[in-house]
Amino acid sequence: MNDTFLRACRGEPVDYTPVWMMRQAGRFMPRFAAILKKMDFLTMCRTPEIAAEVTLEPVDALGVDAAILFSDITTTVVPMGMDLKYADSNGPYFSNPVRTEADVGRLVVPQDDEGLMYVYDTVRILARELAGRVPLIGFAGSPLAMASFMIEGAMSRNYTGLRRMIFSNPATFELLMDKIRRHTARYLCAQAKAGAQALMLFDSFAGVLGPRDFREFNLPHVRRLIQDLEGTGVPIIYFGLGAGGCLDQMRDCGADVIGIDAGLDLGVAIRALGNGVSVQGNLEPYVLFQDRDQIGRRVGEVLEQGKTARGHIFNLGHGVPPGTPVDNAKALVDAVHDQSRS
Amino acid sequence: MNDTFLRACRGEPVDYTPVWMMRQAGRFMPRFAAILKKMDFLTMCRTPEIAAEVTLEPVDALGVDAAILFSDITTTVVPMGMDLKYADSNGPYFSNPVRTEADVGRLVVPQDDEGLMYVYDTVRILARELAGRVPLIGFAGSPLAMASFMIEGAMSRNYTGLRRMIFSNPATFELLMDKIRRHTARYLCAQAKAGAQALMLFDSFAGVLGPRDFREFNLPHVRRLIQDLEGTGVPIIYFGLGAGGCLDQMRDCGADVIGIDAGLDLGVAIRALGNGVSVQGNLEPYVLFQDRDQIGRRVGEVLEQGKTARGHIFNLGHGVPPGTPVDNAKALVDAVHDQSRS
Repeated sequence: MNDTFLRACRGEPVDYTPVWMMRQAGRFMPRFAAILKKMDFLTMCRTPEIAAEVTLEPVDALGVDAAILFSDITTTVVPMGMDLKYADSNGPYFSNPVRTEADVGRLVVPQDDEGLMYVYDTVRILARELAGRVPLIGFAGSPLAMASFMIEGAMSRNYTGLRRMIFSNPATFELLMDKIRRHTARYLCAQAKAGAQALMLFDSFAGVLGPRDFREFNLPHVRRLIQDLEGTGVPIIYFGLGAGGCLDQMRDCGADVIGIDAGLDLGVAIRALGNGVSVQGNLEPYVLFQDRDQIGRRVGEVLEQGKTARGHIFNLGHGVPPGTPVDNAKALVDAVHDQSRS
Repeated sequence: MNDTFLRACRGEPVDYTPVWMMRQAGRFMPRFAAILKKMDFLTMCRTPEIAAEVTLEPVDALGVDAAILFSDITTTVVPMGMDLKYADSNGPYFSNPVRTEADVGRLVVPQDDEGLMYVYDTVRILARELAGRVPLIGFAGSPLAMASFMIEGAMSRNYTGLRRMIFSNPATFELLMDKIRRHTARYLCAQAKAGAQALMLFDSFAGVLGPRDFREFNLPHVRRLIQDLEGTGVPIIYFGLGAGGCLDQMRDCGADVIGIDAGLDLGVAIRALGNGVSVQGNLEPYVLFQDRDQIGRRVGEVLEQGKTARGHIFNLGHGVPPGTPVDNAKALVDAVHDQSRS
């Protein structure tokens, strides 16, 4: 088995820099796009054979060093009592957003795996299919990311509802975060038990809070959640999007790997994080629209910066953009492997 | 005249820390809200007596140390050939977004003031009304902010069109940025000529580009624009939202004042910027939903950090949120004045 990714997570020596791409199982891949014509996005998520198939597609087609479970962060909280819908125009949304203390009170923290069994079934298929090849990364949204989705009801531009709850009604917000954290811990532990060999926490709206408020309202929940995962024994990757001002806090969140977005210089981030953690990132995703030579040069710049880290997992600074040519994604993976070997 | 704001911009000694708030002339103010019930947003922008009235409202009601022209960044590029509309649901948008080289080629750089005369008329009214009171800040969107709006056609969440043009078609993007920069320079110089005593550049989507690409695709245009404004003799404020990873570049962009958003620790930002520039910022805006004591404590924290700067203009880290209680905004202004005097 190619364990380069897992070794880099732990800061162990590697023969080359491992690479995978956020949203590598996405619409830019032909098989994914073809399936999406036949069924809706949420059905894809909820059908283990299909979710497993699209998870595997980039492993075969691109040669990446890790697979990441195909799923959507919004599905996780459905068993808590959230009513998840999907609009073609705007993606997943909740028809019953959480606005009041009573709304938060009604949310349940399920004590069994039933409502998310389709995810664990997908992981079990993948663990079997990927055996002897590359590791599988399981994932979830962070408590803050899920709180944002549940309060706003959908992707938000201004996070008005989230911010108002945090600052006007912090006790309700804390209760919400605590419920989500407990549910998410159980969800991630179950993914590891089913066969995920690393777990990634997407703190997708971490940048909503500046350092002062990140420390008070977000960090304690992230730390507690990562503590809850200790028993799994698998590496934990924390990705706080847009929160470059909070690197010192991320450093101490308990994760083995800190994901770095494209808003930071990777070398600067590594200096701020020190040598207690590995890093993952951070090529500007739209470089995938440049030509092969330009992609190669940009890969070289990121690899050079990554050398100073305890361990470096090459990735984009955000997801693969829609419309990315598959050949260019393959060229990126090849460039990482070729340049980091020499 | 209260010139505390201008003195802080230049790093001269002040008796107290001056304060104003981004979007202080906004919907949370009662007179503004009442006018908006009688006419649409763009008509407000284009009617000098009305635009002047709402600009003055917070000066009277809140006691801020500067007024900022009420306008919208989108209106600036209408004389270049952009067709500006307004949707109640989603704000201003352009019905003819710029997508191709031919679209960019069609854009004009007007050689007279005619298409924006209503702005200069507003500034002239304000210069008269504010004489002996507080300075007036004129403003514009940065070339990147306007390019984003013109390419996407509206506020965007993913900036897909912008990023694709930058990376797939950099020559077209450069031409677009150059046209916008020339037009914006003329626009800002005319505001200064009409009586604006400081000029602010809103680089509202600066965080779209990481440090590597900010340096190549954004900074040269910002620097050139600020150079174009040298003849005005007024202080220049540059605000690059979400671009905390680019502070070293902002430091050298030529501005007198660097606006700091709520994503950064102000003390950390000041250390990165050094003593060649003043800073403006950066209280978390939603603190305005806390009570008066909490607002006072948070003001104190920001003032303490601001002490290390060459000059500090107190502001929020982003605009005043919708629904902000006017009393709380007033409490913030009073807290800044009281605490910084003692």
